[in-house]
Order: sequence, then structure tokens, then C-alpha cells
Amino acid sequence: MPLRFTILATDRSSSARVGLIGTPHGSFETPAFLPVATRGTVKGLAPDELRSAGTRILLANAFHLMLRPGAEGVERLGGLHRFMAWPGPILTDSGGYQIHSLADINSLDDEGVTFRSVVDGRLVHMSPERSIEVQNALGADIIMAFDDCAPYESGGAGDRLRRAHERTLRWLDRSRAAHRRPQDQALFGIVQGGTDLDLRRASVEGVCNAGLPGYAVGGVAVGEEPRLIDAVVRFTVPLLPADRPRYVMGVGYERDIVAAVRAGADMFDCVLPTRNGRNGHAFTQDGRLHLRNARFLADQRPIEADCRCSTCAGGFSRGYLRHLFSTGEMLGPILVSLHNICHFHRLMLDIRQAIREDSWSSLARRWPVLDAEHAGDRVQSTTDHAP
Amino acid sequence: MPLRFTILATDRSSSARVGLIGTPHGSFETPAFLPVATRGTVKGLAPDELRSAGTRILLANAFHLMLRPGAEGVERLGGLHRFMAWPGPILTDSGGYQIHSLADINSLDDEGVTFRSVVDGRLVHMSPERSIEVQNALGADIIMAFDDCAPYESGGAGDRLRRAHERTLRWLDRSRAAHRRPQDQALFGIVQGGTDLDLRRASVEGVCNAGLPGYAVGGVAVGEEPRLIDAVVRFTVPLLPADRPRYVMGVGYERDIVAAVRAGADMFDCVLPTRNGRNGHAFTQDGRLHLRNARFLADQRPIEADCRCSTCAGGFSRGYLRHLFSTGEMLGPILVSLHNICHFHRLMLDIRQAIREDSWSSLARRWPVLDAEHAGDRVQSTTDHAP
Repeated sequence: MPLRFTILATDRSSSARVGLIGTPHGSFETPAFLPVATRGTVKGLAPDELRSAGTRILLANAFHLMLRPGAEGVERLGGLHRFMAWPGPILTDSGGYQIHSLADINSLDDEGVTFRSVVDGRLVHMSPERSIEVQNALGADIIMAFDDCAPYESGGAGDRLRRAHERTLRWLDRSRAAHRRPQDQALFGIVQGGTDLDLRRASVEGVCNAGLPGYAVGGVAVGEEPRLIDAVVRFTVPLLPADRPRYVMGVGYERDIVAAVRAGADMFDCVLPTRNGRNGHAFTQDGRLHLRNARFLADQRPIEADCRCSTCAGGFSRGYLRHLFSTGEMLGPILVSLHNICHFHRLMLDIRQAIREDSWSSLARRWPVLDAEHAGDRVQSTTDHAP
Repeated sequence: MPLRFTILATDRSSSARVGLIGTPHGSFETPAFLPVATRGTVKGLAPDELRSAGTRILLANAFHLMLRPGAEGVERLGGLHRFMAWPGPILTDSGGYQIHSLADINSLDDEGVTFRSVVDGRLVHMSPERSIEVQNALGADIIMAFDDCAPYESGGAGDRLRRAHERTLRWLDRSRAAHRRPQDQALFGIVQGGTDLDLRRASVEGVCNAGLPGYAVGGVAVGEEPRLIDAVVRFTVPLLPADRPRYVMGVGYERDIVAAVRAGADMFDCVLPTRNGRNGHAFTQDGRLHLRNARFLADQRPIEADCRCSTCAGGFSRGYLRHLFSTGEMLGPILVSLHNICHFHRLMLDIRQAIREDSWSSLARRWPVLDAEHAGDRVQSTTDHAP
């Protein structure tokens, strides 16, 4: 099996666990946060900066890379690791979600999806076979089954969700059959079912039958209210096999991550740190700063006083960052994205420490941004740990 | 005096010299290339990346910084060094050139210039006194006198050039009188005169009377033909005092720099590495690569095989860089700008070595991009040095 998952520590007060995932390109500890390198680059950041910020595994999108430069284009340049100059672990998303959220869909049936390329308008066909072919060519360490990710608006609308769930199961079988590199690429299945918990249970039963090296919860954080994200994650994650990595796709804010970890989740990806970073929104342990705001004009402080990221430790003041955003200078998005990624990696480090030390209340103290319930400080720890 | 200039080596076959300039924020060897941080940032690059690329001194623009965030804004954030988080030497340009090349001038007379701000349309007044006040507030190690930089189109048009030259002398006196930080900021004078060599001589005589710690040749590379740049630089530079740093402003391409060094110049600044970098034009010792070109689609090679910059040594292929430019990803401009800045610093390093070893022919071999005349390989060296 191309992926080894070892549980290193478990929490006494929840289903949280610390794990180690070994891949052909190195290992990483879980719970882990994956920055998003949509088109084979985390916007504005070089691999060595990501590594210094704490990144150990990246997510890239099969959907975007198949359009430009094409999976075969990446293959000609030595595969995705060499293409991106990122020697560590990589996960590719299958394109199921992107097709429904981004593409101009021409037709969708059991065979697959045909959509118009946003790049040049040509018709592109995507199916479980084609998605896996693309992901085999890209060569990521973890690849995702091709799923039918029903839009959230269809949530209550009759049988669209059920059909998506059933199709996802059929497409999982075809994804497995199409996979040509099981020796060095771990295929994860994706559980669908929207906000319908019965469907979620049925999806878990169908998907987890496959005996795969890992499982993901898809179709969350696709527009539904936060309490629904939480409800679906808390219900679904514990149903997944405990001896395999559990990946909650596209989540999320700090409190969502902590809640999912306590439900037993191990992996997360989200565009929040980079998307918000590009808009001048900085994450801190006390909440977000909107650095374009005039109140930062003469603020000599770093984004966060005790942060060791290269933005905060590098001497860049809030006033200077505001100047970079007001003048449209690239360095603003770069520096704030880097801080934000570091913020999420620090959260994961603190979470792993909280699990190892059975000390969720110290996490809640270090992260006032997490509200009491989600930070888990209702769970009193006996081995409290000062920050 | 806030600036110490020591000549470390002189060339036997030309007026070239290697020097060391000491400032309150550290020293740098000359001939030196200054990357341009127009608004207090070299576009897309953090200070530690610049330092690793070989940058020892940066140029920032008083004109742009007085408009945003305002000189007093920078001062409130601790002065320019702290603002930019660049602890090394900085030079600020006075704004004379920018006003003529960028601003919508409302009035220009002996008193000064009034122009409309491109930021908010308000009328802004600039005079020798205001320029020096701004530069005193910014706090760079080297500041420039406020000059009247006549547009090149006025080159042959009667007395505009002569008036600009005479005004520049009067404004130099006012710049000196206005300077409030002579103890830690070295004021350089600027020689004008356009392409009129008699005016250039008169300007040198007037400006160099001032007993300043350094002198610059301004008003070159403002739109005139390359042979005129060369003629003016070769004529003017040797007239400047040999015991002071000689700075040729806004120059330029590799061959222009080599020609100016051989005429005795010590300092250069230019936006070429960053502006071209943002457009996907990479400088190499064999000429420029246009990385958007389809021929790089499957090119696995770095920009330059023997380059030690973090772009080339970091494993980024030409094919990947092309992908970044075709998809509009920020990392493309960042990586190519960094390579280009490294390219110019490597040229300066090779030039300093050529001077120290009396070996211009080895420089010409390492830099085929320099044509025979400018690389100086007509001068046969006896101490040839293999690359």
C-alpha cells in the first residue's frame, strides 16, 4: 500500500487523534492542514517559504491542471512534484467539486460530465476514467475518486442528492478500476449525501466497503450554514473506519477544524488563508484583521506579536502592510498569505499538542478566536499546559 | 561625513575601479547595482530574498512615497529602513525625474513644480526644499539633490536644456541649504545637460563645485538612442571627481553598465530586472528569454543552467514558469524578477573581479551577451581568469 497511517496518540475526551501518514514523498503528522495550490502554485508563495511556514503536504486540482497546461503537459515536465518544485507529499482533488462549482456544464449523466473550458471555450469531457487518468499522469501521492458533488441548493430538492450519492458509488467503482498506479498513489473515496444524515450514512456504508487507504467527507462547506457543516461533520466522521485517514474537504475556519478534529478527522484543506491573504485579511489568534483599514495607517506592530512567521518576525508592520495593499503592491498579498498559512499550521500544531497532552483548555486559552464550545474547554484537562 | 568611499582596486586598461562605500546602515562594494523599490518595495520580493540574491543597497522614490503614504507617514512608521524592513543602505531619488516623466505638471518655474497627484488629483507642490524635507523624513543613507530633468524631446529645442541645467545648479544650492541631516544622510548632486556635451561639461563644473560626498549623472536613458547614452556617459563620468562615488542614474542594460564602469562609474539603478521579470522576460548571459513563448512548453531546463539564484537552483523549469505566466499566477513575476536581479548582481560581481584581476576578456567570455567592444575584450589581459 502506497500510504502508511500510524496513530501516535489519542485523546481521552474526544475522538481526536494524532497520526503520521507516510507517502512515497515523505511523511506528515495529522491532524494536518493542506494549503491549496490550485494550478500547481500556492498563489504568490515559493515551496521553500511554504516549508518554512510549516507546510508538509499540498493540494492541487486535477480540474485546473487538466485545462492548463494539461495533465500530459505536467507529465512531460516530470510530473507534479517536479513541475511545482515541491518534493514533499501532494494530494490532487479529482475535479468533481470544481466541475459543479466552476464549470459551464453542458451535459451530466451516468457516463460523466461535459463542460465548456473557461480557458478556450472548447468542450471538455470528464469521467471517473478520465479523472483518474489525469491524476495518474500528475502523480500525486494521494488521489481522489471522481464524485458527483450535488450543489447545496439541491439540498432539499427531491432526489438530486440521492442520485448524486448513488452515482458517486458507481463512479467510485469505475475510479478504482481505472487506477493504474495503486503501488505509489493512494486512492481515497469521497462520502457524499449533503445535509441529509440518512444519505450520509448510506454513502459511508457504500464508500467504505471499498477497502481504500483513506476516506474523505465531501460536499461540506459548499454554501450551507455553519451549524449544518458542524452537524454533518460530527455525524459522518465517526462513521469512517478509524484505522484510515479521514479527510474533511474544503474545511475551513478554525472552529470548524477543531470540531472536526474532535470528531476524529485528520486532514483539511482550504483556500481561506490565501484567498483572505490576497484581500488583506489576516488571521490571528484573536480574530481577523482587515489590513486595508485606515486604523492601521501608523500601526508599527506586526500582525501578531508572538507569531514566528517570516512576515511577523521579519519586521513588517501593519502600517507597511496597509501601504502595500493601498498601492496594490504584490508583496502585501504575499506577506499576509504567508502569515495566514502559518496561522493554520500553528493551529494544527497546537491541536496535536492538545491531543498528546490531553489539554484542550490550554488550546482554548491560546486561541481566544475559538469559542468555548468548539475549543473543547468544557473538557477539563488534568495535564494543563502553559503556552 | 555620513559616507566613506574607499577605492580598493583600479583597472590598468580603463578608468574602472572597485570601491567600498560605508553608510550608517552598512557598506557595499562598487560597482554596485541598486534594485528599484519605487513605493518602498521591490515588486514581489521580500528583503531576505533580495539579500540572498546579492542586493546590498536599494533605491526608493521620494516622489511616490510622498504621495502614498506620505513622508510623514513613513516617518511615523519608524523611517524608511524600518518601514521596508530593510536594514541595509538605501538611496532615495529626489523626485525631479519622476515629476517630468510621470506627473501632470501644472506649473514649473524657478520656485518649483506644481503637479496633480495621480493618486487623488490634488495639487502637490515640489521644490528643492520640499524634496529634501521629504528625503530627510524618509531617512535614506544617500539622498539626491532636486534637479530639473528636461524631457529628452526638448533635446535640440533651443534653450530648454540650458535653462534646466542652470536651474539645476540653483536648486542644488537650495537643496544643500535645506538639508537637515548632513550628519547621517549623504547628499549627492546631479549633473544634467542632456545630450549636449558642452552643457554636460558646464553642469559638471557647476555641480562638482559643491564639495558633496558623491555625484550622479542624470538625464540619461530617458528615451535617447543607445549610442547617445554611451557618448554622454563616456564623456561625463570621467569629469566627475575621482575620489567620490559616481552614480549613473537609470542605467541600464548590461553593455551600458560595462561601458559606464570602464568610464569610471560606481553605482547604477534600473527597473529592467523587475519590469522585465513581471512580463516573463528573463535575462541570461546569452541574452533574454521570453518565457511566455510556446517553445518553452515542455522545457525542463532552468532559466540558466549555471545560475545559483533561488529560481534556477530551486528547480523551477522554463516550462513551469511559462505555465505560471499563461495562468497569470503571481509566482511567475516573483521567480523571474528574482532571477533577473541576481543576474545583474552577478554581472557586478564579475565586473569587480575583472577589475581586480585586470581580466576583461574573461568577463567577455562569461557574458556573450556583451558585445566585443563593450565587454572590453579588445583589452588583452595578462592575468586571464577562467570562469
